[in-house]
Amino acid sequence: MKSALTKNWPVRRVQAGRAARMRADVLAVEEPLELRVRGRSIAVVMRTPGHDADLAAGFLLTEGIVHSANDLYDILQCRDTDVRAHEGNVVEAVLAKNVRVDFDRLTRHVFSGSSCGLCGKATIAAVQQQFPKVKRPLRVAAALLRRLPAQLAAVQPTFQATGGLHATALFDAKGRLLVAREDVGRHNAMDKVLGHALRAGWLPLDRHILLVSGRVSFEIMQKALAAQMSVVAGIAAPPSLAAEFARANTQTLVGYLRADRLNVYAGRLAPAR
Amino acid sequence: MKSALTKNWPVRRVQAGRAARMRADVLAVEEPLELRVRGRSIAVVMRTPGHDADLAAGFLLTEGIVHSANDLYDILQCRDTDVRAHEGNVVEAVLAKNVRVDFDRLTRHVFSGSSCGLCGKATIAAVQQQFPKVKRPLRVAAALLRRLPAQLAAVQPTFQATGGLHATALFDAKGRLLVAREDVGRHNAMDKVLGHALRAGWLPLDRHILLVSGRVSFEIMQKALAAQMSVVAGIAAPPSLAAEFARANTQTLVGYLRADRLNVYAGRLAPAR
Repeated sequence: MKSALTKNWPVRRVQAGRAARMRADVLAVEEPLELRVRGRSIAVVMRTPGHDADLAAGFLLTEGIVHSANDLYDILQCRDTDVRAHEGNVVEAVLAKNVRVDFDRLTRHVFSGSSCGLCGKATIAAVQQQFPKVKRPLRVAAALLRRLPAQLAAVQPTFQATGGLHATALFDAKGRLLVAREDVGRHNAMDKVLGHALRAGWLPLDRHILLVSGRVSFEIMQKALAAQMSVVAGIAAPPSLAAEFARANTQTLVGYLRADRLNVYAGRLAPAR
Repeated sequence: MKSALTKNWPVRRVQAGRAARMRADVLAVEEPLELRVRGRSIAVVMRTPGHDADLAAGFLLTEGIVHSANDLYDILQCRDTDVRAHEGNVVEAVLAKNVRVDFDRLTRHVFSGSSCGLCGKATIAAVQQQFPKVKRPLRVAAALLRRLPAQLAAVQPTFQATGGLHATALFDAKGRLLVAREDVGRHNAMDKVLGHALRAGWLPLDRHILLVSGRVSFEIMQKALAAQMSVVAGIAAPPSLAAEFARANTQTLVGYLRADRLNVYAGRLAPAR
């Protein structure tokens, strides 16, 4: 398989009891994307190229900078970077004039080496975004949730080729797949899905279900809340802070989701019929 | 199992064809750690509590702020935070007087929502740390590498209980396990191992082998280079940028490591005997 999401790479494969041999392998591509607002750089994310406008939109939504499609006028690719290698890796989000951007707040959020979506917050107080609780929690049936992983697996081609990507998918309340995105970064896949929904005018997502391929972290729950999303499911177990956050914000958090089972860590499902 | 790394949490388990039942589950704990230098907050990382001094030391090493044990005088727990809930989650790194800290550079690194160790760099130019190439690459035999995953699995108790942690382990050139750490964040586990090595006076780690439980990302290779580490192995496939970085810096990058096989994406192993 060859696409913008993958790159061919020569690999030396060594197996016990056999001669080593070279073969072409396919690796997931990972490149930095620089995001600018009103001419100022506000972040760099390491991401799988593609759907960059969605990623930028979702990032702005989940950081609390924009709140609806009206706040976001356009997202442009910048061609004026001085380093040629960065071409295509810089975007400028054009916000509506009335959107207030607190650059001071942004620059109080300094760098960090954590593998999480809260990176770069300079103080613990800055970690918690302030989004309202879910007002109308959606109650879905366990049987409906148990059908979702197979749908996500069917549209996750790069993951199957490289084993190196995270996937996120958005479903409606009937369990119909609306959009799915893959990325080397768990939070990027999430931002791409939410950015797509924002730009499509689907917000709030309070009649929707989100599925992530791995564990549901605290930041995933917080990003979901930015879109008023109440039902979030993952394939692995969540960390404790995610469960605490979900409970505090009337979200439903499901883990270990399989075709025949699931665990509910916070919130409630619809009663089985 | 109950420890500082885990928290009991009530879970509703739903299985097809059976009545749902409540049971106590064990979740991986995730809390923010705020790192201060000379009284100023420089970062917050979401991490598994424990080995915080190692985490802080490794973070400072891999961000290029300290380079040896001599640069780091002490790491103190701060008790003066105004929010009680943060107690134990703020540390101050006391650096040697001659260590220059470029706070301007740090504050040019603003926030980011990526799931990566480069988060918060505000421009693409800031993503690449400048560490020297590996001067004396270590050549190890495939047979030695293939014995390492079993050693890591044996000392990874929390991962087995929760399924939610990343692990990193440091071995010497003979394949003897020196230190292993687990964390909800891939890069934190790495920083904890490197910080331990820094504080123990083991640097440079050019006669050592690093093993990570998942994929070896670009940032993992860059953090390894900060300690002059040439051999890095992971259980999953790396993304392309990690392979490119390894090749450019004379590092050996191994993926899909199992008891009976492995792939070499960059660098060379010792010839089989």
